[in-house]
Amino acid sequence: MQITALAGGVGGARFLRGLLAHLDRSPDLAGSTITVIGNTGDDITLFGLRVCPDLDTLLYTLGGGIDEQQGWGRADETHSVQGELAAYGAEPQWFGLGDKDFATHIVRSQWLGQGVSLSEVTARLAARWGLPDRGVTLLPMSDTPVETHVVVDRGEGPSAIHFQEWWVRHQAAVPAERFVAIGMDRATAAPGVLDALRNADLVLLPPSNPVVSIGIVLGVPGVRDALRGTTAPVVGVSPLIGGAPVRGHADACLSAIGVESTTQAVAGLYADFLDGWLVDERDAEVEVGGPRFDPGLQVRALPLWMKDVDHAADIAGAALELGLELGRQGRHAV
Amino acid sequence: MQITALAGGVGGARFLRGLLAHLDRSPDLAGSTITVIGNTGDDITLFGLRVCPDLDTLLYTLGGGIDEQQGWGRADETHSVQGELAAYGAEPQWFGLGDKDFATHIVRSQWLGQGVSLSEVTARLAARWGLPDRGVTLLPMSDTPVETHVVVDRGEGPSAIHFQEWWVRHQAAVPAERFVAIGMDRATAAPGVLDALRNADLVLLPPSNPVVSIGIVLGVPGVRDALRGTTAPVVGVSPLIGGAPVRGHADACLSAIGVESTTQAVAGLYADFLDGWLVDERDAEVEVGGPRFDPGLQVRALPLWMKDVDHAADIAGAALELGLELGRQGRHAV
Repeated sequence: MQITALAGGVGGARFLRGLLAHLDRSPDLAGSTITVIGNTGDDITLFGLRVCPDLDTLLYTLGGGIDEQQGWGRADETHSVQGELAAYGAEPQWFGLGDKDFATHIVRSQWLGQGVSLSEVTARLAARWGLPDRGVTLLPMSDTPVETHVVVDRGEGPSAIHFQEWWVRHQAAVPAERFVAIGMDRATAAPGVLDALRNADLVLLPPSNPVVSIGIVLGVPGVRDALRGTTAPVVGVSPLIGGAPVRGHADACLSAIGVESTTQAVAGLYADFLDGWLVDERDAEVEVGGPRFDPGLQVRALPLWMKDVDHAADIAGAALELGLELGRQGRHAV
Repeated sequence: MQITALAGGVGGARFLRGLLAHLDRSPDLAGSTITVIGNTGDDITLFGLRVCPDLDTLLYTLGGGIDEQQGWGRADETHSVQGELAAYGAEPQWFGLGDKDFATHIVRSQWLGQGVSLSEVTARLAARWGLPDRGVTLLPMSDTPVETHVVVDRGEGPSAIHFQEWWVRHQAAVPAERFVAIGMDRATAAPGVLDALRNADLVLLPPSNPVVSIGIVLGVPGVRDALRGTTAPVVGVSPLIGGAPVRGHADACLSAIGVESTTQAVAGLYADFLDGWLVDERDAEVEVGGPRFDPGLQVRALPLWMKDVDHAADIAGAALELGLELGRQGRHAV
């Protein structure tokens, strides 16, 4: 089957690695292919080099090069380049980049500078990480540079800072008033993105940040329409466990857009196209007077903490199972 | 006194480090300043990054960060970035760059990309290496990109390759037909270069390659005229010992321009402005019927092998002494 997934960074990458593990142990699903549409709103130019944090986390995690502890960056990493840049007084110093990681940004920037599209650059990087051999195609959401900026007010009136500055430097501790996807007004979906949604047998939303990862991808012209129109069931995995993000600052992001940090509210962000929703057991019980799921949504509860690849595979397996079930019923025929 | 030197890479850098050591041990020369005009014809864009091999060798050598064994690159270097670039299939792979060295190229490229001139970039890099504290100002010969290319003929008609490709990749083993300084026709001397030659008390030519280092600097509009017109004595150090270069491929370069590999012939390249010339003892005897020095040139013989900083200091001291002597005589009054 052809599976298409939208994805941000760490959560998305770990879920998709689990999906690959589940496919490996499922002979009946042999030959399945996965197209991943990665968020590029986190992209930033640092030291003149183009850095694509979510795409890189996907590449490194699916390719076996990730720093497991951090969740991002390369394993067995050194930091000579960064130390030297600091000695030269280069800015910024709040974003940590290892030496191996730098090579990715150098070669990407070299190719982009030669006029190669981000799609093609990403395909070249993915080839090195063996993704095609695993049946995985990684697409950036757009070849047009889009950068998520965060409007904050530190007492001197509103100003916009790059998402990475807010997320990494300020640890999302400065209240965000809103997010602006700079460049989105002239962005188009990268080649293959809309077709991958329209022609999929199943669309998955991994437990990525609903605002600054999935939310940004959904803002690419045509993506949301393709999700509404696809004949494939769309199954999402809640990024919240017990109403809180497992990692990252999804709650701060939800708060900025005026959405409660509940799995019900996150599902509501996808209400116009979501068919199935996996929630953690802790979020399954709907209290009287509490937030409610859309009655048309098929909700399944299971442990959602991806503490290792096996658990991620179980979650991915549950998402696939729900998708297959919804597919048999026919979409929107619940 | 104000000393101005033209310089290429390793030989120039080691000589100038010797000059600093000599100044340190010469109380009567306290307060002397050195302006170094570095060759930028070796510059090359690799992996989208601007690399200035001669300027960097000067910075690292004078700043105490050089790999002594190699003569170029950083001490205690690692090679993660290069290994990763190779894994990604990035080209070229024939130029070795260490991780710390990469940082220099990254920050230089970042600043150049912001519109900062190469002069200003070089000043910033030099500040980190403590050159101003040593009384040293390092100037690129020009802020205009100039790249030395080598016309070769490998049996398929003449073609031009970058100097670095000829020097590093082919080890100068492919016969050079000629050298072309691409960009020189629109180049101007960097700010301060011509004044540093005109206002010097002494001009030194370290034992750098006479064709592709000193020769390229001499090609910058105004430089040769400034050397002819300066009131300062001009003293050079032969790059040949026993008719052969100590390192590098100066003989292959001289051959390409139809000049014999003799210290007399090299001095002849500078005949229009050279006042004093230090030669190795082995090259001092002028054979009957052999090459001859210009009768107006003051030649001194001494051991020229810079086997350590002390020997380099002795050679620099001899150059200074000859310069002071010539200065007392009045230029061209020999």
